[in-house]
Amino acid sequence: MSMSWLITTLVAASFSSQLAYAYDLDPLQDICVAVNDSKASVFLNGKVCKDPKLAKADDFFFSGLNVSGNAMPNSGFAANVVDVNTMPGLNTLGISIIRVDFEPGVLVPLHTHPRATELITILDGTFYAGFLAPDAANVFKSRLFSKILNPGDVFVIPQGLIHFQYNVGHKNATLLASFNSQNPGVVTIPNSIFASDPPILDDVLVKGFQLDKKVIKQLRKKFS
Amino acid sequence: MSMSWLITTLVAASFSSQLAYAYDLDPLQDICVAVNDSKASVFLNGKVCKDPKLAKADDFFFSGLNVSGNAMPNSGFAANVVDVNTMPGLNTLGISIIRVDFEPGVLVPLHTHPRATELITILDGTFYAGFLAPDAANVFKSRLFSKILNPGDVFVIPQGLIHFQYNVGHKNATLLASFNSQNPGVVTIPNSIFASDPPILDDVLVKGFQLDKKVIKQLRKKFS
Amino acid sequence: MSMSWLITTLVAASFSSQLAYAYDLDPLQDICVAVNDSKASVFLNGKVCKDPKLAKADDFFFSGLNVSGNAMPNSGFAANVVDVNTMPGLNTLGISIIRVDFEPGVLVPLHTHPRATELITILDGTFYAGFLAPDAANVFKSRLFSKILNPGDVFVIPQGLIHFQYNVGHKNATLLASFNSQNPGVVTIPNSIFASDPPILDDVLVKGFQLDKKVIKQLRKKFS
Amino acid sequence: MSMSWLITTLVAASFSSQLAYAYDLDPLQDICVAVNDSKASVFLNGKVCKDPKLAKADDFFFSGLNVSGNAMPNSGFAANVVDVNTMPGLNTLGISIIRVDFEPGVLVPLHTHPRATELITILDGTFYAGFLAPDAANVFKSRLFSKILNPGDVFVIPQGLIHFQYNVGHKNATLLASFNSQNPGVVTIPNSIFASDPPILDDVLVKGFQLDKKVIKQLRKKFS
Amino acid sequence: MSMSWLITTLVAASFSSQLAYAYDLDPLQDICVAVNDSKASVFLNGKVCKDPKLAKADDFFFSGLNVSGNAMPNSGFAANVVDVNTMPGLNTLGISIIRVDFEPGVLVPLHTHPRATELITILDGTFYAGFLAPDAANVFKSRLFSKILNPGDVFVIPQGLIHFQYNVGHKNATLLASFNSQNPGVVTIPNSIFASDPPILDDVLVKGFQLDKKVIKQLRKKFS
Amino acid sequence: MSMSWLITTLVAASFSSQLAYAYDLDPLQDICVAVNDSKASVFLNGKVCKDPKLAKADDFFFSGLNVSGNAMPNSGFAANVVDVNTMPGLNTLGISIIRVDFEPGVLVPLHTHPRATELITILDGTFYAGFLAPDAANVFKSRLFSKILNPGDVFVIPQGLIHFQYNVGHKNATLLASFNSQNPGVVTIPNSIFASDPPILDDVLVKGFQLDKKVIKQLRKKFS
Repeated sequence: MSMSWLITTLVAASFSSQLAYAYDLDPLQDICVAVNDSKASVFLNGKVCKDPKLAKADDFFFSGLNVSGNAMPNSGFAANVVDVNTMPGLNTLGISIIRVDFEPGVLVPLHTHPRATELITILDGTFYAGFLAPDAANVFKSRLFSKILNPGDVFVIPQGLIHFQYNVGHKNATLLASFNSQNPGVVTIPNSIFASDPPILDDVLVKGFQLDKKVIKQLRKKFS
Repeated sequence: MSMSWLITTLVAASFSSQLAYAYDLDPLQDICVAVNDSKASVFLNGKVCKDPKLAKADDFFFSGLNVSGNAMPNSGFAANVVDVNTMPGLNTLGISIIRVDFEPGVLVPLHTHPRATELITILDGTFYAGFLAPDAANVFKSRLFSKILNPGDVFVIPQGLIHFQYNVGHKNATLLASFNSQNPGVVTIPNSIFASDPPILDDVLVKGFQLDKKVIKQLRKKFS
Repeated sequence: MSMSWLITTLVAASFSSQLAYAYDLDPLQDICVAVNDSKASVFLNGKVCKDPKLAKADDFFFSGLNVSGNAMPNSGFAANVVDVNTMPGLNTLGISIIRVDFEPGVLVPLHTHPRATELITILDGTFYAGFLAPDAANVFKSRLFSKILNPGDVFVIPQGLIHFQYNVGHKNATLLASFNSQNPGVVTIPNSIFASDPPILDDVLVKGFQLDKKVIKQLRKKFS
Repeated sequence: MSMSWLITTLVAASFSSQLAYAYDLDPLQDICVAVNDSKASVFLNGKVCKDPKLAKADDFFFSGLNVSGNAMPNSGFAANVVDVNTMPGLNTLGISIIRVDFEPGVLVPLHTHPRATELITILDGTFYAGFLAPDAANVFKSRLFSKILNPGDVFVIPQGLIHFQYNVGHKNATLLASFNSQNPGVVTIPNSIFASDPPILDDVLVKGFQLDKKVIKQLRKKFS
Repeated sequence: MSMSWLITTLVAASFSSQLAYAYDLDPLQDICVAVNDSKASVFLNGKVCKDPKLAKADDFFFSGLNVSGNAMPNSGFAANVVDVNTMPGLNTLGISIIRVDFEPGVLVPLHTHPRATELITILDGTFYAGFLAPDAANVFKSRLFSKILNPGDVFVIPQGLIHFQYNVGHKNATLLASFNSQNPGVVTIPNSIFASDPPILDDVLVKGFQLDKKVIKQLRKKFS
Repeated sequence: MSMSWLITTLVAASFSSQLAYAYDLDPLQDICVAVNDSKASVFLNGKVCKDPKLAKADDFFFSGLNVSGNAMPNSGFAANVVDVNTMPGLNTLGISIIRVDFEPGVLVPLHTHPRATELITILDGTFYAGFLAPDAANVFKSRLFSKILNPGDVFVIPQGLIHFQYNVGHKNATLLASFNSQNPGVVTIPNSIFASDPPILDDVLVKGFQLDKKVIKQLRKKFS
C-alpha cells in the first residue's frame, strides 16, 4: 500500500540528516531554491525546490569565504564549502566554490572529482599542484602536468583526473576552487582505498599496490 | 611533422582574426587543448584541439589574477579574464573565471550572460549586487533579489537573468566571478541597445523605453 | 519530523497557484504527462508526471491557435500560449509554441528568452524584427541583425540574445513563435528593470542608463 | 595514405550537394552560421561555422512559408522546409520548422523522427493525426493517441514515436510542424522498409509482417 | 486542496504496478538507487532514489544472464532484461543490457529504440541483422546496412533507426544487447501498428501500406 | 578562399598520427562514421565523419569478441576493445564494449573511468569485484560495494568511482564490460601515480600514502 511506503520513507528520512544531491543540468526555470531541510524525505537526482514565491535574496547568498573554514581534524587543512547545502539557491545552477586553507607543508592527497572540472585560483602562499592524464597508448602510464603556483595563478584540472595540491611554502596557503557542478563529488584516493567500510580484500591491495600484506595492514591503520 | 601543420593552419588563418568559440559540453577526452592562434581558420561550435602529445602544463595555467586587468577606457573598471583564449587547456572543460576591479562608485551596468550561471566572490570593498527574476504571473514585472556584499560574501546569478554589480564603497573593490561555461557570453543591456551597429530603428527605442526621440538620440550619443 | 515538513509543504502549496516548471532535457520515457493541478505541492526541476495509464489524447492537444489570445491590458498585443501549463503532455518534450497578435504600430519591447532559441513565422501583416549579437571585441557594443518580415517569412533569434518584434504595418499583424523549450522564460527588458519589486537602487539606473534621477523616476512610473 | 583519403573526400564532396548535419546541443557562442557550401569537404557532428564577422541578417532569414513547397512526385503532398540547409544561421540553435500541404485524402504515412519532438499546428483543413506509445507491459502492443484536428489545433508527437497525419477533409489542408532539432531526421516506415537499397531479405519481411512472399514482392514494387 | 491531490495520487498509485522511468542524464551524485516499489506513487522523469545510506551491494547486482529469460508466448524468443527495474542501482547511470535467445528461424521483427543506441554481441548461433538509414536525398528511400553475424561479432544500431535480428541458423542463437540508456524504449513496428489500442483508422493503414482493407483486417487479426 | 584552406589542411594532415577522440553526445544525424585514418590531422572534441555516402556495413561491425585479445605484457590479462578506433561507425553513438580475459589470480588494479558508467557481465570464471562510493559525511572515508561474481552475473560501477575486478578462481575468467561512452577513459590508479612521466614529487607520495621515501622509490621501480 502506497501510504505505508510514504510512511516508511518518512521514518527513514527522519534518521537521515543529509540529502545533498544536486542537478548539473541546465536550469529549467529561472530559480529553483532547494528545500534544504535535513528531514525532507524524498531523494531525487537533485533536490526539490521550494515554492518560488517564497524565495528570498538570502537563498542566493553565502557569507564567510574571506576566512578559513573549520579545520578537518589531523589534516592540516580546512575547507569552507559553498554548495547547494550551504546556499540553497544553487540548486539546478550547475556551479559551486570552495575555499581551502593549508598549514605549511600540508598536502591534499591525490583525489578526483567524478562529476566536475576544477579551476583553482591561488589567494595566498605557494603551491605545487598537478594532475595526471592517462597515456592513450599505455593504460599503465600517465603524464604529469604540474606547476608551482603563487598568488594570482590559476590552474585547471579536467573532470575525473587524479590531482593534488601541496603547500610547499613556509606559511599558510589558501586557494579558491570553482567547480562546474553543484555536487562535484570527491574521491580521496589513498584514504578511500585504505579506509573503506567494509575493507577491500587484502589481496586486491597487495597485488594492486605491489606491497607486502604487512605494509597494507599498516596503511589501513594509518588511514582509518 | 606537426609544426608544418601548425604553419599551414596559421597561413590559412591569416585572413581570419578571431575564433573565440568554446564548448560547454562534457569533456570527451582527458585533455583537448585549444589551438588558440587568432589566425586559425576553422570556426566550429567550440575550438579545434592541438595534438594531445604537444600539450604542456602551461596550457592549463594562467598567471596574474592577483592584480587588476587592463582598465576599459572610461569605464572605471578593469577585467582580467581567464577563458579558453587566455588558457587554452580550458577547451571542452566548461568553466572560466574573471577578476573585476571597480573604482569607487563604479557600476557594471545591467547585463546578462546568455550561456552560464555566474557565482561571484567578493575579495575587497563593498558591493550592491542583484538580479531580476521574471514574475511568472506578469511578464511585465520582475522580482529583485539583491544584497550588500562585503569581502567573503558569495552571490549567485542564474543563467540568462539581468543583473548588476555596483561598488557602493569609498575605495576600490574587487570580485571574482566564476562561470560554468568556457564562453558565457555577455550582453551589456543599455550599451548594446544604444550603441548597436547598425542602430535599431528609433521607434523601437522610443516605444520600448517610453522616452522622447530626443532623449533616445542623446542616449545613442552617450553610449557610442 | 518529516511529516511536519510534508504538511508544511502541503499548506504552502495550497496558496500557490502555479508550478510551471518544465524539463528541456531529452524525454526519458515515451510519455510523461504533467500533473497540472495548481494545488500540487511538490516543486521540481520540471513537473511531476501523471500515471501513464491515465494519459489521454487530450493531454497532447490544444485548441484555439487560429484566433488571438486574450489581450494584455494596455499593451496592444495578445498572446496565445501553448506550453506545459496549457498542454500537459508537453512535459519533458522540450518544445512550445505561442501566437502573438499585434495592433498596428505595436511593439513587443526588447526582451530575451534565457533558456531557448525562438523561431518566428509571420502569419499576417508586416514586422520589423531584429536581435543584437554582442561584439566579441567590445562588450559595450553589439551588432544588429534585423529584417522587415512579411507573411511566410521566418526569422530565428539565438538563445538569450536581446530582440524585438514591431508591427510596422497599418493593420493587425500576427506571428507564431516556436521555442526549443517547454519553459523558455521571458525577460522584458525595460519593464522588468523599471518595474521590479522591490525597485533597483536609483543610482544603478542613473549610472547604467546615463539618465537623470528625474527621468528614472518618470520611467518607473510609466512602467509600473 | 591520408592524402588520398582527403582527395577522395574532396572529390566525393564536389558531387555532394547536401551536408545537412546539425547540432542540437546548446549553442556555444552567440551565433555560428553554417558554411553551407555544397563543396565543403569536412563532415562533422554538425556543421562548420563561417567567420562570425561575415554573418548577415539574411543568414537568419527564410522567405516563402506562406506558400506550398514543391510537391513530391506522386505523393499528393508538398513540403517547405526551414532547416540549417535553407537557413544557415540555424546551425547550433536546435530548432527547425516545416510547412506541409496535403491534397484531399492524402496521408503522410507512418513515420518517426529519431532525434526530435514534433509540434504540429493546423493552418487549414481537417486532419486525423495520431501517435503510438508502446505498451510498457507488452512490447507487441501499443496505445494510439489520436485526434481530429481543425485550424488552430495543436498536437504534439514525442521523440521517436510512430505517427501519421491524414487529410480527412474534402479540400487541401496545411500544417506547420516545429521540431526541437536542426536535423530531426525522418524514417518513413512502409517506404523505407519496402524500398531499401539493398533490399531486406524476403524472410525478414514475410515473417515480420506475416504476409506471403508474393505480397511482399508486390509491396516492394509499389514502394520502389 | 493539496491533501486530496496527494491522496488521489496515492490511490491511483495503488493500482499501478510499474514506474519504470529512468534518467539518462549524467549521474548527479555517486549513487542513487531506485525505490523500486511498484506501489510508489510519484511519477517523475526518472525514478526516486532511496536513502543512500540504505544502498547495498545487491542494488548494483543482477544474477542469471547466463541463461535464457522467460520465453514470450508464441514468439520463439526469450528476453532476460537488466534495467532499472531489475537492478535498481542503475538509476541515473544511463546504461542497460539484455540477453535475447532465439529458436531456429526466429526473427525479432523490425523495431526501433527511441532513446538509445544498441550494441549487439553474438554469443551463440548465426544471425542476419541490419538497420535502415534514411536516404537524405529522398525521404521515401533508405539504405540497408546488414551483416551475417557469428559468435564474437559485434554490430551497432544508431539511436532511433529501424532494425531487425534474425536467427538464420539451424540451432538456438543468443545475443547480448547493450544500450546507452536505462530505458531505451522499444517500438515493435508491425505489431504496434496492427495491434494498437484503439486501432488506427483503416484508411491510414490501407493508404500507408498500399494494401487492401481486407489484408489490413487480416493483419490486425494476426497481430492482436 | 576555401580551397586554400582545404589544401593547407591536406598538407597538415599528412604528418599527424592519431585522432582518437570521440563524442558522447547524442548522435546528431543518422550515421557519422569516423574517419579513422591515423594520419588525419584535425583534432576535435570527437572525430570527423566520412562522407555518409561512403559508409558501409563493415563500418558498424567488429569481429572477434569471442576470443581473447592480445595479452598485455606481464599483466596476466588481455583486452579486446570495441571502440570508435576499431569500429568507426560508433562515432557519435555514445557506447562501447570490451572483453577482458584474466589468468587465475589476476587483478585489474584499482582504476576509474572518468567519462562513463561500466556494466560488467561475467562470461566465465569467478570474480571478486567492487567499487568505492565516497562517504558524504567524511571525504576521507568510503563505502565498499562488492560481490563475488559468477557466470551470468551483472554488476554496475557508477561513472568516475574507483573499482577493481579480480579473478579469484583457479582458472581463466572472462568478462564483458559495456560503457555508455565511446571513449570512457581509464585511470589506473597505482600505476598512473607511480609511473607518471615526469614523476610526481616524492613528498606528495610520501605524505599522501604515508609511506617512507624508500618505499615510494621501490614502488616507482615496480610500476615503471
